[in-house]
Amino acid sequence: MAQSTKERLLETGMALLLERGYHDLGIQALLEETGTPRGSFYHHFRSKEDFALEVIDRYMAEVHEGLDACLGDTAAPPTVRVRRFFELSGEKYRREGYLGCLLGGLGQELSGVNEVFRERIETCLSEIAGRIADCLEEARAQGEIPADSSPTEMANVLLNCWEGAALRSRLWRSPKPLTQVLDFYFGSVTAEGRVS
Amino acid sequence: MAQSTKERLLETGMALLLERGYHDLGIQALLEETGTPRGSFYHHFRSKEDFALEVIDRYMAEVHEGLDACLGDTAAPPTVRVRRFFELSGEKYRREGYLGCLLGGLGQELSGVNEVFRERIETCLSEIAGRIADCLEEARAQGEIPADSSPTEMANVLLNCWEGAALRSRLWRSPKPLTQVLDFYFGSVTAEGRVS
Repeated sequence: MAQSTKERLLETGMALLLERGYHDLGIQALLEETGTPRGSFYHHFRSKEDFALEVIDRYMAEVHEGLDACLGDTAAPPTVRVRRFFELSGEKYRREGYLGCLLGGLGQELSGVNEVFRERIETCLSEIAGRIADCLEEARAQGEIPADSSPTEMANVLLNCWEGAALRSRLWRSPKPLTQVLDFYFGSVTAEGRVS
Repeated sequence: MAQSTKERLLETGMALLLERGYHDLGIQALLEETGTPRGSFYHHFRSKEDFALEVIDRYMAEVHEGLDACLGDTAAPPTVRVRRFFELSGEKYRREGYLGCLLGGLGQELSGVNEVFRERIETCLSEIAGRIADCLEEARAQGEIPADSSPTEMANVLLNCWEGAALRSRLWRSPKPLTQVLDFYFGSVTAEGRVS
């Protein structure tokens, strides 16, 4: 079935926002790249801001699918499932040419000037951290990580470290920072587990 | 002595770039805020890009001052000196209202579309990581961290994790992600030291 105009705009817009950021994305360029008349864009979206927010929704739907697939695989130990989610994200970054994370990019660019984006992106990161925290809570209950650890704090630290590694990966156009941060984080968590 | 026009432009520009990013910074707004005639701006800077690159140079001069002050204090153990540098950066973020790191912000925004900025910002981060690695090499030699650790990799991981925490701090307008990442990193490094 042919992709709808709206779908095509969102998909192309996601790639352009990841590469160029928000302010450098021209609606005209998006229309040309997708062969869409201007009126059609404004039929589907009230404004550029509305469009970018819908791109973020679409991005998050994919993130939740990845979380479902990785964290839901209860055959694997919880910390392995969490690592797999980040490895899956790293695979996505590879396919895109290591441009990092859309949430990190838009969060950096817009959170100083736009409260709507600041709140939306924080909500997204907070949702991801929450799902990882649930899995780390399983890890805690199963003794994979120390009994006195805080799954919520550990999930936020991991997600934040990953976002920094994603930025460096964007600068290097390389997976190395991503692998290094996962090795360090899970190595530390395991080491702490051994110590306790 | 009165601040020179160029100094005033760079100082105000640094604050505006941190808050608004590159594309959203209007030269007209900068001129109005600093009471500078347009001709004077173009007397000092060839272009907006040239201006932003000089802002980055100025930012890096401050970073190196902070590194000198913290890492050079050989009375303290090397890992303590490294942590102090990041705490000093966190103090700066606090004074600015937790807007994160200029290098992280511009790196995210521009590295997908501008090779000059991508290379310049990577060079800056690489310089910072290099100085931290030298101090972690001292930590390794003194037995503060395991003999088989890689100071260069450890420095890059720390810097990248910090950049991610700085982004989250920008989203939260709070120091919490910064403190959490330092506690996690140095706690892990210490735990590994105990294990080895």
